[in-house]
Amino acid sequence: MPDSHSGRADSAAIPAAAPAAHQASDRPSDRSADRAAYYARIAKKNMAPLWESLHNLVPRQPAPRCVPALWKYDDVRDDVMASGSLITAEEAVRRVLILENPGLPGQASITQSLYAGLQLILPGEIAPSHRHTQSALRFIVEGRGAYTAVNGERTTMHPGDFIITPSWTWHDHGNAETTEGGEPVVWLDGLDIPLLRFLDAGFAENYPHATQPVTRPEGDSMARYGNNMAPVRHQTSSGTSPIFNYPYERSREALDALYRHGELDPWDGVKLRYLNPATGGYPMPTMATFMQLLPAGFQGKTYRSTDSTVYSVVEGRGTARIGDQEFHFGPRDVFVAPSWLPVQLAALDDVTLFSYSDRPVQDALGVWREERVD
Amino acid sequence: MPDSHSGRADSAAIPAAAPAAHQASDRPSDRSADRAAYYARIAKKNMAPLWESLHNLVPRQPAPRCVPALWKYDDVRDDVMASGSLITAEEAVRRVLILENPGLPGQASITQSLYAGLQLILPGEIAPSHRHTQSALRFIVEGRGAYTAVNGERTTMHPGDFIITPSWTWHDHGNAETTEGGEPVVWLDGLDIPLLRFLDAGFAENYPHATQPVTRPEGDSMARYGNNMAPVRHQTSSGTSPIFNYPYERSREALDALYRHGELDPWDGVKLRYLNPATGGYPMPTMATFMQLLPAGFQGKTYRSTDSTVYSVVEGRGTARIGDQEFHFGPRDVFVAPSWLPVQLAALDDVTLFSYSDRPVQDALGVWREERVD
Amino acid sequence: MPDSHSGRADSAAIPAAAPAAHQASDRPSDRSADRAAYYARIAKKNMAPLWESLHNLVPRQPAPRCVPALWKYDDVRDDVMASGSLITAEEAVRRVLILENPGLPGQASITQSLYAGLQLILPGEIAPSHRHTQSALRFIVEGRGAYTAVNGERTTMHPGDFIITPSWTWHDHGNAETTEGGEPVVWLDGLDIPLLRFLDAGFAENYPHATQPVTRPEGDSMARYGNNMAPVRHQTSSGTSPIFNYPYERSREALDALYRHGELDPWDGVKLRYLNPATGGYPMPTMATFMQLLPAGFQGKTYRSTDSTVYSVVEGRGTARIGDQEFHFGPRDVFVAPSWLPVQLAALDDVTLFSYSDRPVQDALGVWREERVD
Amino acid sequence: MPDSHSGRADSAAIPAAAPAAHQASDRPSDRSADRAAYYARIAKKNMAPLWESLHNLVPRQPAPRCVPALWKYDDVRDDVMASGSLITAEEAVRRVLILENPGLPGQASITQSLYAGLQLILPGEIAPSHRHTQSALRFIVEGRGAYTAVNGERTTMHPGDFIITPSWTWHDHGNAETTEGGEPVVWLDGLDIPLLRFLDAGFAENYPHATQPVTRPEGDSMARYGNNMAPVRHQTSSGTSPIFNYPYERSREALDALYRHGELDPWDGVKLRYLNPATGGYPMPTMATFMQLLPAGFQGKTYRSTDSTVYSVVEGRGTARIGDQEFHFGPRDVFVAPSWLPVQLAALDDVTLFSYSDRPVQDALGVWREERVD
Repeated sequence: MPDSHSGRADSAAIPAAAPAAHQASDRPSDRSADRAAYYARIAKKNMAPLWESLHNLVPRQPAPRCVPALWKYDDVRDDVMASGSLITAEEAVRRVLILENPGLPGQASITQSLYAGLQLILPGEIAPSHRHTQSALRFIVEGRGAYTAVNGERTTMHPGDFIITPSWTWHDHGNAETTEGGEPVVWLDGLDIPLLRFLDAGFAENYPHATQPVTRPEGDSMARYGNNMAPVRHQTSSGTSPIFNYPYERSREALDALYRHGELDPWDGVKLRYLNPATGGYPMPTMATFMQLLPAGFQGKTYRSTDSTVYSVVEGRGTARIGDQEFHFGPRDVFVAPSWLPVQLAALDDVTLFSYSDRPVQDALGVWREERVD
Repeated sequence: MPDSHSGRADSAAIPAAAPAAHQASDRPSDRSADRAAYYARIAKKNMAPLWESLHNLVPRQPAPRCVPALWKYDDVRDDVMASGSLITAEEAVRRVLILENPGLPGQASITQSLYAGLQLILPGEIAPSHRHTQSALRFIVEGRGAYTAVNGERTTMHPGDFIITPSWTWHDHGNAETTEGGEPVVWLDGLDIPLLRFLDAGFAENYPHATQPVTRPEGDSMARYGNNMAPVRHQTSSGTSPIFNYPYERSREALDALYRHGELDPWDGVKLRYLNPATGGYPMPTMATFMQLLPAGFQGKTYRSTDSTVYSVVEGRGTARIGDQEFHFGPRDVFVAPSWLPVQLAALDDVTLFSYSDRPVQDALGVWREERVD
Repeated sequence: MPDSHSGRADSAAIPAAAPAAHQASDRPSDRSADRAAYYARIAKKNMAPLWESLHNLVPRQPAPRCVPALWKYDDVRDDVMASGSLITAEEAVRRVLILENPGLPGQASITQSLYAGLQLILPGEIAPSHRHTQSALRFIVEGRGAYTAVNGERTTMHPGDFIITPSWTWHDHGNAETTEGGEPVVWLDGLDIPLLRFLDAGFAENYPHATQPVTRPEGDSMARYGNNMAPVRHQTSSGTSPIFNYPYERSREALDALYRHGELDPWDGVKLRYLNPATGGYPMPTMATFMQLLPAGFQGKTYRSTDSTVYSVVEGRGTARIGDQEFHFGPRDVFVAPSWLPVQLAALDDVTLFSYSDRPVQDALGVWREERVD
Repeated sequence: MPDSHSGRADSAAIPAAAPAAHQASDRPSDRSADRAAYYARIAKKNMAPLWESLHNLVPRQPAPRCVPALWKYDDVRDDVMASGSLITAEEAVRRVLILENPGLPGQASITQSLYAGLQLILPGEIAPSHRHTQSALRFIVEGRGAYTAVNGERTTMHPGDFIITPSWTWHDHGNAETTEGGEPVVWLDGLDIPLLRFLDAGFAENYPHATQPVTRPEGDSMARYGNNMAPVRHQTSSGTSPIFNYPYERSREALDALYRHGELDPWDGVKLRYLNPATGGYPMPTMATFMQLLPAGFQGKTYRSTDSTVYSVVEGRGTARIGDQEFHFGPRDVFVAPSWLPVQLAALDDVTLFSYSDRPVQDALGVWREERVD
């Protein structure tokens, strides 16, 4: 990470001069030189003067390095597909194109704390089983026939499904080869990789085999936890949801129903958050996820919050005004809105938007803020 | 690289259901060139191949850039005092020498998520009132006569006291000038500045006056919350402790009593964590604080955890073996142990150590780990 | 008994530091008389000797006054229907036959803490709107066409549905008269009436009109909270579920799926608890609810717990051995198992059982216990 | 417990007649007879008509059977001391005079959910070790030299100290015989006996010996948890405080300090609640405890709440107006205020009052209410 208080570095480079207090010179140029000499001296002892960087370190409001950006799916689909002939899923382990925020070059980050990438899995391929302390979400973008396996259960992925692979659980992905050949499947990976790197709390391990054994039939987690019921002896042991596939069908239906019921927030349209039924909290301790419906013609009011947010468009076309930039989005596009920049959403068609952010982290630390401009 | 570019276009044009790995060259050097061309092309679209950085991004275990380091108080005290004549407290706002981790140059960080600095306030000076979303702790290193004001109450600071200024509360510091002149007072500032910068959730504001009005007598918070009792109508509204001074006298006495009672952990000696009596949790949502006693002759076993930790020595001399480095410490020294590096503590005299880390963050996210080697 | 009385006066007059047991008579018959006189005397001052009742007050294990009992629906259905011509729903406010535990005569209780009753509503009738601090559940036993209204939303009741009317929310019930006349609808009411009477915390209020206005379409709560999602701005304000109808269709399907997946607990069969998706806890702070499937031929092992439990049979026939009594049950029967009596369930057909108890209260107080006998 | 809806019992006793269902008469007298017959018939099936008792079962506001009462210590001290010569501590197991609410005769209850008693232990005596799921508090009324042992630690009891013996922990009491003979020690026992009897969740066990082994020095719990610190590896495993003696000295000092600081609530005076430092909650899951200071001349405003409350006067004289009764109290007196009756406190001298109630239960269930009349 580059110097985030480069102001200090500059001022430390200021040549000369001196004053301060009794024995320092009273002349500004002297004082300046005194300080520079002092800064150089203490730098050798791994110390630096706070007063030269205080404004950068404790800013009046967030000054994110992350910038607004949009990845048009039409622009990147060919590249995603090309990766399929460049490297195998096995060799790559995870064949993913990282979506890297232009303001954070070389950071493998779409926001300072979060990672996003487009993963491709071809018919007949397997992305081998491993586990890591990083939590992951998969939001299915295109294709049918692939599965994600978690805790001995495989779930089939459909476009618009939101799937999680919790921290430190074995998980692998596969795409069945059918007699017709099958389809390439692409999903958006969302992970807290930068956050765990920042906390230096990342661990990872490979499973001895490409796939973990299947010990539970598909739909088992959903039967156990997905109907506002839970096994009578279930103990909540982690902050992660015991449901690992939240199907688009149900999310879409819920949004539609609420819209038919007259629900329409001037800022959000109709917006639901995914929840962990075992706690009522977010599905994962580090990432919040949302799905919202903007009906055709919706012109949202301006909103901002401190959780930089990644959006994945499911259906429809519209515009996102972020800060002073305007982005035109369509199905399968991905865009990102940095912390505290004003965001305004509008819909040309009926739009459904999936999004994720680090809001649970900010909530847990008591620092999350939002502002709705009327 | 126009050729490889058109090659890619071809492969992208193949039917989605039948991507063909064979279309890319089979010769290693060609493949390598293919990939480089591909990487260059997608870089322009703000994309990067995960498979080239997967091991760094999802490491087998933490690989901190933060390194072990020790600041001998004898080495830095003169510099701290010299700052008093270089700049006034008013001009500096906070006259602090940042202790910057040698592995994180220019980051104003002692660990990736935390900040540490030595603050000096001279008799007659005031560090003007402001507030910010960053949480702060003050651990008093030397001198008497200074105070910290929070929420309309001033508390007198004594060496070894642990004082907090919670997120978004007005706070100022002062050092009364007495007829004898008074003493310079130095404390260790611990803040979550890097963490809030990382989350882009920092806000700050100056108070219109140098000091906030004093509306409550000294000791008021302690009378309300410090005796295992609380006001009958107190509502817990934040994750921060309503006590803001934890006096050394009581901490020291508690450690001594437990040691007399035979308590001695082979790794920790006698170790207590400070708590928020309104929740039982840590005093602040972002920083855990601890005080431990290592009796003379103590030879601690090896321990490691994922929360990089900053230590401030109160009393006694000893050694800290961190990774493969050994540090000899004495009173008022500060040292830092990075995530997951083995730490072994030993005491020559009776040692008391204050420490702080981002453990509450890691706990909230479910990623904290520790290992005690037997 | 004036003598012994004066004797007591003497002993009370002895110096406090030297009470003398010898002053009381040593002869058993005298001692007994002494004590009786003493007990009579202190009774006038509203005092009683603990030592005479200690074993009853602090028993070695629960000694419930509540007894096992079964209400065969075939036996009581005519009485329930007869109430329809005895009193109108309007006059009765709630036309309910209380199921009163034979061990608790005159207490209007099916267990010490809980109430159960069978409520009848005829086509064209309304049970007028009111609210109370008592929480209520409705478990639908027979008939179609009735609704419960809560918070401006009406939900249609089907046999096997579990419906709640949370503490202090307006609620009314109605049964639409159709051109064919409609059906009488009967449900089991479960309330915490005895508990709130015990705590002296009951409040009630009538709504100014027979029915509350309908402000939200049917299915609104389910769309908002029933799909493992929640409104993005939902604040959890109470311990009660925002879902108020848990349809049998989904519960039944979940149990079936798990059974097909091989799930079968030797004590419980396949058993799920209903949950509050906003917290992961029970749907109401005072009552836990469960649905379980016992496949035909199931012979459950012996189980007991401290939460006396009320069962309502949905489908199938079987036996419940409770303590040393055996009950043969069929569809729509209600039975009750007291605290700590061994319970053993067996199924002749595929059985589905709904049940409720005060387990959340016992959990909150840390006193719930269970025992599974192998 | 007597019949709480005796209205029904009466009507069920009406001799009467018969019909029911379709053929019921239209004439009021006939209808009355019809109903009586019906009630008699269903009573045999353990059923009763809700509509005859609805108002009693779901009252508009609490109608407690518990009544206000005062026990003057001067009136009962002789009786307490007399018990010392009537029965030994060993024979009695616990030599306690139950303070029985006049409204709840034979219930061994001071409120519907709570128990109170005055326990006497003479020099040289031991109240043998046992444990039970009932939680207990001891509030010391007079005498010095006795101890309570919990979890291997003994704590010396002084007047005004608040001591707990948590659910299911071994505990015993003793009073050392000194060369001067020692003093009888009396304390107020507060337990949740009626509550656990109501929930049928009481278990008890005797320790094989009169006293449990002493494994930790006096003051150990206080050193570990009493200074707003806790052992670094402490895991909160129950809802009960790890501190078991809250000394009067500290409580009194805190109240005094706040009063000097100008704190004075028009209803409460200066009032603190005791807390469990491991959770911020009440010291026990079933009982809240409070200490308040009413300065001489204080005339409190009227207050009421749903948690019936037991008061023990530590110092000073004053009056408690409860409902329409006025009680004059002095040191060591005990009085009780039932649910929802208006309470007004006044102080002649500086008064300190300890009190306890079942408020944590009502909080957990979401049914606690209070009203402050201005």
